[in-house]
Amino acid sequence: MDAPLLYRIALDAMGGDHAPHATLDGACLALAKHEDLFLLLVGDEAKLRPLLKHHGLVGELAERMEIIHAVSVVTMEDKPTSVLKDKKDSSIRVATQLVREGKADGVVSMGNTGAAMVASVMVLGTLDGVDRPCLAGVMPNLKSRPTVLLDVGANVDSKPEHVAQFALMGAVYSEEVLGVEHPRIGLLSVGEEETKGNETTRAAALLLRELDINFGGNAEGRDIWNGRFDVVACDGFVGNVVVKSSEALAEGIVRGLRDSINQSLRAKLGGLLAKGAMKSFMKKLDYAEYGGAPLLGVKGVSIIGHGRSEGRAVANAIRAALRACEHRVNEHIQASLHRLLPNGEGR
Amino acid sequence: MDAPLLYRIALDAMGGDHAPHATLDGACLALAKHEDLFLLLVGDEAKLRPLLKHHGLVGELAERMEIIHAVSVVTMEDKPTSVLKDKKDSSIRVATQLVREGKADGVVSMGNTGAAMVASVMVLGTLDGVDRPCLAGVMPNLKSRPTVLLDVGANVDSKPEHVAQFALMGAVYSEEVLGVEHPRIGLLSVGEEETKGNETTRAAALLLRELDINFGGNAEGRDIWNGRFDVVACDGFVGNVVVKSSEALAEGIVRGLRDSINQSLRAKLGGLLAKGAMKSFMKKLDYAEYGGAPLLGVKGVSIIGHGRSEGRAVANAIRAALRACEHRVNEHIQASLHRLLPNGEGR
Repeated sequence: MDAPLLYRIALDAMGGDHAPHATLDGACLALAKHEDLFLLLVGDEAKLRPLLKHHGLVGELAERMEIIHAVSVVTMEDKPTSVLKDKKDSSIRVATQLVREGKADGVVSMGNTGAAMVASVMVLGTLDGVDRPCLAGVMPNLKSRPTVLLDVGANVDSKPEHVAQFALMGAVYSEEVLGVEHPRIGLLSVGEEETKGNETTRAAALLLRELDINFGGNAEGRDIWNGRFDVVACDGFVGNVVVKSSEALAEGIVRGLRDSINQSLRAKLGGLLAKGAMKSFMKKLDYAEYGGAPLLGVKGVSIIGHGRSEGRAVANAIRAALRACEHRVNEHIQASLHRLLPNGEGR
Repeated sequence: MDAPLLYRIALDAMGGDHAPHATLDGACLALAKHEDLFLLLVGDEAKLRPLLKHHGLVGELAERMEIIHAVSVVTMEDKPTSVLKDKKDSSIRVATQLVREGKADGVVSMGNTGAAMVASVMVLGTLDGVDRPCLAGVMPNLKSRPTVLLDVGANVDSKPEHVAQFALMGAVYSEEVLGVEHPRIGLLSVGEEETKGNETTRAAALLLRELDINFGGNAEGRDIWNGRFDVVACDGFVGNVVVKSSEALAEGIVRGLRDSINQSLRAKLGGLLAKGAMKSFMKKLDYAEYGGAPLLGVKGVSIIGHGRSEGRAVANAIRAALRACEHRVNEHIQASLHRLLPNGEGR
């Protein structure tokens, strides 16, 4: 039997609120789970090497990893463009550079989201036919499979052509990575009727209606959660607001319920009995399960995780990068755009 | 002792998914609770009159109400502009007309939201100094007092001046009706930093920063829920998407938890014990508690409720109309706009 093909994923080991402990935990979990993973841990070698053993990165697992030294770190306070100027030697920039140079197949970072996007867009460049890469939020669906909401923050003031491209890229991700056959695409708007929307969405709808895709028309805010659409396309301003608002609302509900239950002994006992059931449901909503947002449209695989990620979320982000590599998402995106927008109409 | 001053509220008795039963239930609850309320029930008299007794609208309560006949009803399928054309005799249009003619102080409808907005804007007209009326969502805050999010759907493609006006109107509502001293205003955007946002928000921020108000800069999606701001201003497209998405998410979480708890006997028992505590928390999130969104900026009080409203939500919407009358919201809005934007800079 041949040795399994290894995908080389560069992990920004220094990025995120809990780095490097969370990233090293995630590295260990991911290496143990995915035999086809070779991990490039990018960061300060003097800091990382002494921690490897503690995080279980020894033996067979350690054989499928390597530390790539990077001097500096982009902090949450740094400007995104710092990766192009004074922080060229940062872990996120160096990790992205590895993809550019063909030394890695994908990059994963839990660090400064803006910096990770700038690094990917500027260092990797955009795929042929893509005007603006976009960040895809894989939204936990309360019913069945997740809905891909995009753009969730890479672009504001998008033109209708950009929103249409987001829709196509999201459909490829849904089909190839999430395994949804013929994904149903919606355009985020303020009402189901064709006439409802703003200038951008009305023009984007006209573009999408012309294409040979499964376009279901306008989606409303509620349709992000009810499974009516597999892909919901929007400008990054509204997508970003919805994602941040939803995360805070869901967390607030869980916290509020817990506090309320803890106020009486009777309810507390009830809460203990129901704990397992509540937890198993809440897991569905947990961003850590989905492990980061793919930045679609760049030349290379780039997954941007949540700053607060702990080990499990890091491991799932690495899994997302692996899947994007395995399913050759970028080849499919390029083919889809070429087939559907052959004359660059999308631009 | 003088007889208490009565506020005359016109209720679109035929509007909403559960009308007229829900509206009559709400009428009864509201009349019983508010001694200063005189209710004008607008709708098909032949249908309404036989139902009054069943809904408790007898005796003293019935003395503070009157039926105003209206032939037709605007359905959820009708176009909003139908109130200006073939449905001039509809309950929502007739109810709004009563305010216009000085026969009512405010109008409340649970019917077709678009039609209610069109009726209010076109029949009542806008306040001096207001370019675009806006719909204010009173968002249940998970911590303390609610946050006023506006616009939640009256306007798309708003100009920066409009968003600035929404902020000022929301601040008046927060201060005068919700009793928040010196409300803190935020501008909904994609990051806290001044540079973050789209063209509209960046220009609106410049306008708001010049004014003598408690402007706290950019708000993010999460700030709708955490009490950081008392007022969050935005274009109606994003506001509408956030409101519909949040409602669906919160309902989905509650339903999901219930289903999960009902799957095992042990959890079911726990759920029973914790039921009271869970319910008391969920009440905080219930839109019915807030009873409808005020349409701010029109000449007269107009409250637009949720189509799904049951009696309690209708009663709370009537309460919101009463409060807006009592606190003379419109006079304050006009004074605020004149004081802050004396040369109509907001336009």
